[in-house]
Amino acid sequence: MGKFCYGVDIGGTTVKMGLFTADGELLEKWEIPTRTEEAGKNVLPDIAASIRENMAGKNMADADVIGVGLCAPGPVDDSGVIYKAVNLGWGVMNVKDEMSKLVGLPVMVGNDANVAALGEMWKGGGDGSNNIVVVTLGTGIGGGVIVNGKVVSGFNGAGGEIGHIHINDDETEECGCGNKGCLEQYGSATGIARLAKRRLAEDDKASTLRVVDNVTAKDVFDAVKAGDEVAIEIAERFGDILGKGLAAIAGVTNPEKFVIGGGVSKAGDVLFEYIQKYFVKYAFHGCRDTKFVLAKLGNEAGIYGSAKLVIDGVK
Amino acid sequence: MGKFCYGVDIGGTTVKMGLFTADGELLEKWEIPTRTEEAGKNVLPDIAASIRENMAGKNMADADVIGVGLCAPGPVDDSGVIYKAVNLGWGVMNVKDEMSKLVGLPVMVGNDANVAALGEMWKGGGDGSNNIVVVTLGTGIGGGVIVNGKVVSGFNGAGGEIGHIHINDDETEECGCGNKGCLEQYGSATGIARLAKRRLAEDDKASTLRVVDNVTAKDVFDAVKAGDEVAIEIAERFGDILGKGLAAIAGVTNPEKFVIGGGVSKAGDVLFEYIQKYFVKYAFHGCRDTKFVLAKLGNEAGIYGSAKLVIDGVK
Repeated sequence: MGKFCYGVDIGGTTVKMGLFTADGELLEKWEIPTRTEEAGKNVLPDIAASIRENMAGKNMADADVIGVGLCAPGPVDDSGVIYKAVNLGWGVMNVKDEMSKLVGLPVMVGNDANVAALGEMWKGGGDGSNNIVVVTLGTGIGGGVIVNGKVVSGFNGAGGEIGHIHINDDETEECGCGNKGCLEQYGSATGIARLAKRRLAEDDKASTLRVVDNVTAKDVFDAVKAGDEVAIEIAERFGDILGKGLAAIAGVTNPEKFVIGGGVSKAGDVLFEYIQKYFVKYAFHGCRDTKFVLAKLGNEAGIYGSAKLVIDGVK
Repeated sequence: MGKFCYGVDIGGTTVKMGLFTADGELLEKWEIPTRTEEAGKNVLPDIAASIRENMAGKNMADADVIGVGLCAPGPVDDSGVIYKAVNLGWGVMNVKDEMSKLVGLPVMVGNDANVAALGEMWKGGGDGSNNIVVVTLGTGIGGGVIVNGKVVSGFNGAGGEIGHIHINDDETEECGCGNKGCLEQYGSATGIARLAKRRLAEDDKASTLRVVDNVTAKDVFDAVKAGDEVAIEIAERFGDILGKGLAAIAGVTNPEKFVIGGGVSKAGDVLFEYIQKYFVKYAFHGCRDTKFVLAKLGNEAGIYGSAKLVIDGVK
């Protein structure tokens, strides 16, 4: 087996790329623009050229390279076909075959959220534990469910779609998915802002949040840290709903750890105070000691996970 | 590899035993009593003797036998240790090692509910699909989550504890687990009887169920089939809650099929009418076409699954 591999995370604006050792040490990272014009036909050739250039600069032979791992935003099946990565302009394409031809190296492909979870398992908050659930609290809620060291992608690629677990029968507003009462309507950054808006409208109780235009999740948790009572009430509602959702997940795969990432996780350990309190309330007793940790890799999770994907896949 | 194997399901009253081909054909089945007295010290020797007797009767050599798969009611870890199978009188015991010594053949051990799910995957309702969730609607609700052909036992052996997913914030009665509002408080045989009792107490609407003492789940679904309006209302409430719970599970592992077993499943296909209607309402769109099928193996699921366990384990 070669000594190095490339991990590539294809986003709608930039492609993140990393050169790794087989042990997962990130030696070098760089970005290239994602040229989405003309149905994204340049995306893969640009990546292949950039990898070949990097290899040439280091006098690396093909035998030195295990392969190239790629992840992209869209459902990916086991044969490496990506179905409509709309942000990249792609239709249905066998990215694994295309990229293998272009770069002349073994290639493995995965969905970006799932691959990022793999990265966190390997070198991030999961810290080697091979039964974890990565929960990304961003604009929405994404999930990566890992069982026995493998991402659970599911029969239709909908494994880990935990943001759309139904949690509230009384919701009147629609979620982006078309349902009402989904977990991400309360637990995401947008959801927390919504909870705040609703709470503030209920009465006139004093709060530092009242002078803020368009309260964000960050504003809420900053105010929680400063002891603001209304902000603490909002955090309790957030914790109740998210704790309930994560307790349901624990009853399915009983992970060792929940690894919490995404923009909301920047609030830090204060989150756990509210999530774990309710998680313990709602979880089956056999799952109550599930650990909660923060994700560590930030936006490098995708390149780490892609590297892991190709290391495991080529073994 | 030998041509035959034994699948053994150790229950509190009887031990079910089966002789299988390596392809999973059940050639012969029989039962012996479970002698639970004296901390169940005779249970494993009795099983070993019965297997040896069966082999002798057929002039089978050790080389003809792949091994013995066992399942028992209790948490089992990967090394074959069972933690307190209270129904058998056992404390903590390495059943795999003990049984290997007694029977002189390779042994694999699993938890009975998980192993039964494996049996249904292999030769039952799962029909070869390797991403399924087996839902057992009995006195309680048990689950067996299978991903990539393997049972998800979870970090603490609490994988598949789907009966204790929290589903109702307003419940006042405690579940057997100590929480309030668990899925099995509504979706199990006991749960359906409870829903019926509550519905009948609400008003005086005419129903054939009013003349029945202690309405059971069977009474409810018999009345549903006969068109009884109150029974149909009860089935709707059951379907709403169970559909919601299964939708949450689908958002985690996105199975190809739910395989529904246990006593309640004797009602047959009529169940699906009520479960699927609400499942589709609550599930993420990517999971809505998950299939629902009835379990097929009944109380033979454990011996089939045990046989599969040893065939996979000895490979």
